[in-house]
Amino acid sequence: MEQPLAGIRVVDLTRILSGPFCSMILGDLGADVVKIETPGTGDHVRGQGAIIDGMSWYFASFNRNKRSMTLDLKRAEGKAVLRRLLAEADVLVENFRPGVLAAMGLDRAGLDAINPRLVVGSVNGYGSTGPYSERPAFDFITQAMSGFMAVNGTLESGPIRAAPPLTDLIAGLYTALGIVAALRVRDRDGAGQAVEASMMNGMISMLAYLSAAQLATGRTPPPNGNDHPIASPYGLFQASDGPVAVAASTAPILRRFLETTGLSAMLEDARFDTNAKRVERRAGVDAMIDDAMRHDTQDAWIARLNAAGVPCGRVQTLAEVFDDPQVKDQEMVLDVDHPGHGTVRMTGFPIKLSDTPCAVRHPAPDLGADTDTLLAEAGYSSAEIAELRDEGVI
Amino acid sequence: MEQPLAGIRVVDLTRILSGPFCSMILGDLGADVVKIETPGTGDHVRGQGAIIDGMSWYFASFNRNKRSMTLDLKRAEGKAVLRRLLAEADVLVENFRPGVLAAMGLDRAGLDAINPRLVVGSVNGYGSTGPYSERPAFDFITQAMSGFMAVNGTLESGPIRAAPPLTDLIAGLYTALGIVAALRVRDRDGAGQAVEASMMNGMISMLAYLSAAQLATGRTPPPNGNDHPIASPYGLFQASDGPVAVAASTAPILRRFLETTGLSAMLEDARFDTNAKRVERRAGVDAMIDDAMRHDTQDAWIARLNAAGVPCGRVQTLAEVFDDPQVKDQEMVLDVDHPGHGTVRMTGFPIKLSDTPCAVRHPAPDLGADTDTLLAEAGYSSAEIAELRDEGVI
Repeated sequence: MEQPLAGIRVVDLTRILSGPFCSMILGDLGADVVKIETPGTGDHVRGQGAIIDGMSWYFASFNRNKRSMTLDLKRAEGKAVLRRLLAEADVLVENFRPGVLAAMGLDRAGLDAINPRLVVGSVNGYGSTGPYSERPAFDFITQAMSGFMAVNGTLESGPIRAAPPLTDLIAGLYTALGIVAALRVRDRDGAGQAVEASMMNGMISMLAYLSAAQLATGRTPPPNGNDHPIASPYGLFQASDGPVAVAASTAPILRRFLETTGLSAMLEDARFDTNAKRVERRAGVDAMIDDAMRHDTQDAWIARLNAAGVPCGRVQTLAEVFDDPQVKDQEMVLDVDHPGHGTVRMTGFPIKLSDTPCAVRHPAPDLGADTDTLLAEAGYSSAEIAELRDEGVI
Repeated sequence: MEQPLAGIRVVDLTRILSGPFCSMILGDLGADVVKIETPGTGDHVRGQGAIIDGMSWYFASFNRNKRSMTLDLKRAEGKAVLRRLLAEADVLVENFRPGVLAAMGLDRAGLDAINPRLVVGSVNGYGSTGPYSERPAFDFITQAMSGFMAVNGTLESGPIRAAPPLTDLIAGLYTALGIVAALRVRDRDGAGQAVEASMMNGMISMLAYLSAAQLATGRTPPPNGNDHPIASPYGLFQASDGPVAVAASTAPILRRFLETTGLSAMLEDARFDTNAKRVERRAGVDAMIDDAMRHDTQDAWIARLNAAGVPCGRVQTLAEVFDDPQVKDQEMVLDVDHPGHGTVRMTGFPIKLSDTPCAVRHPAPDLGADTDTLLAEAGYSSAEIAELRDEGVI
């Protein structure tokens, strides 16, 4: 059996991160992704992060399984080439600000005229309608506006941005799902449609119990760092060589945790025999656990607690993560050969399909590496390609 | 045209959050989701969070578009009913610990014998193979082990868990995408397959520039709170009535930001005329901007800076988020009528499909509300249903 998106051609106008993450997922699932880049410069991420042997590892990590074609979309000749590519494509993905595609003549009606079967996926900041639709977006800003920052941190720290650009990635992932769903409609009913996800909406959808509490009661739990708002014991506890994260969040798990740490008496102690009392006296509870756990190492506690069915683990640095035996088992670090640029290490595939797995079919392309091939596939003659190059269109 | 997953029957064995989020997404896209719950108790989330008119709003928010059937899967009779349901289903979703499904006789071979077209989606903590596969997982622990916590926070705060259970939700979302992709393979090639995503792998896939930096250089940027590690100015700046988040992360945006705040001279000042110098003298840069911005309000600056194309916004509380005109335009809060339980407010659909949109076809079900209907659909007679009820199987 072939990969899920084998035979699907994606024309990819995205840059930076949210859109390229979306189109990479489509490529990982088997699509033929054609990344359109500005002649001369290309995606800015090509110049960002650590560059080794002429390749940005950040760019390589989010642009595998794509081919690159240069095309100046500001030129009429460039737009004409794009139209010809779209006529034969299955999917268009873009992360321009809403309105930019329409200004290129590629609004819904324009695209329908070119290819009524085309699925058009858009990743944007705030959605394509509404008072903020045309605002420029950036992960930091949508983390702030979505409510995420207000609950990330502690009372002392105040609102904190998460370092990973979560809103970009979540929006890209939702858009990828929307595109695959829209392809199912098209396969069944014959017509393409537009699908979009925004950075702000995506993050809002991930607030879970916090949004439910806010909507039900008008109150949000305050930023609470590593203490669970309504469970104790829960948090980081001190083994002899460092902290262990423990989530003893149900009654049976709590009992097993206290048995394993020799603290079962806590459940008979009138000061600590309910969760409410333990939350109120959290500092005392935590001190007793720290006292019990400081007599052995992180590794020993983690082995013992896991054997007892208590969720626990180490706060791993990224160096530890990429050296972790589970991460290796799961192939979450890939060594990908990039001809001319050495071997690039990058994170692997979070979706595991038993029979048609994700795969690196080809590494991130050099800028414009596939321009000639793609134009020839689209029916351009060698003379026409040479002319486009002479005119700086490609 | 019908919704993308119209006609798809999902048998849903999931509980708590990661799995129910996955199956809710499938339901939002049109699938008929049959939630199997333990007689008497059901999903524990039914008793969690704020409960109004007998309905947990947290449960309601993650179980819309599902039907509920009680079934005791520990009893042979319960397993027999499940097999009959699976024979006619398209998808099975579960978030047990790896191995639990196999122990019920539902390993890959067992499922193939029942229904070779079945797509089996699993959400788990660490993946179904490897040294940690059988460990109990919990969002806090996978945030810690994935490397996310190590980069979330500040140097002062140390590693901080994000309050939203991100690893649950990201794993559920990846699994939903994997399932829809596997359905595409099945529609084309006729065979189902197993698909899974884990909380740890999902979070690792979202470390973006941090993982690229670690893998390329062996060094991870330290937790840096709201300061961008390599850009200045960037962060929260003080207007007269509170902070404004500003991301002036490219040269043209920086120029527009400084023009709008009357600080263009900074670019001519030998102390501040490169990004490297500004990063080094961040405190001085930030003080100059705070001085300029404290003369006007958040709203005034946000309007002015957005008009100039500078990404900026307020750090919104959840109360502000759900009252935000953009959030309303995007219908990211839904009022859903739950007969007998009043109207429940919940977050909306992050995936916007133009022609076959996500919709609330029915609210979260009462425990076992659809048991009889579903058994009758599966061919059980009234007498057989009564017997199953008498024996406590349903």
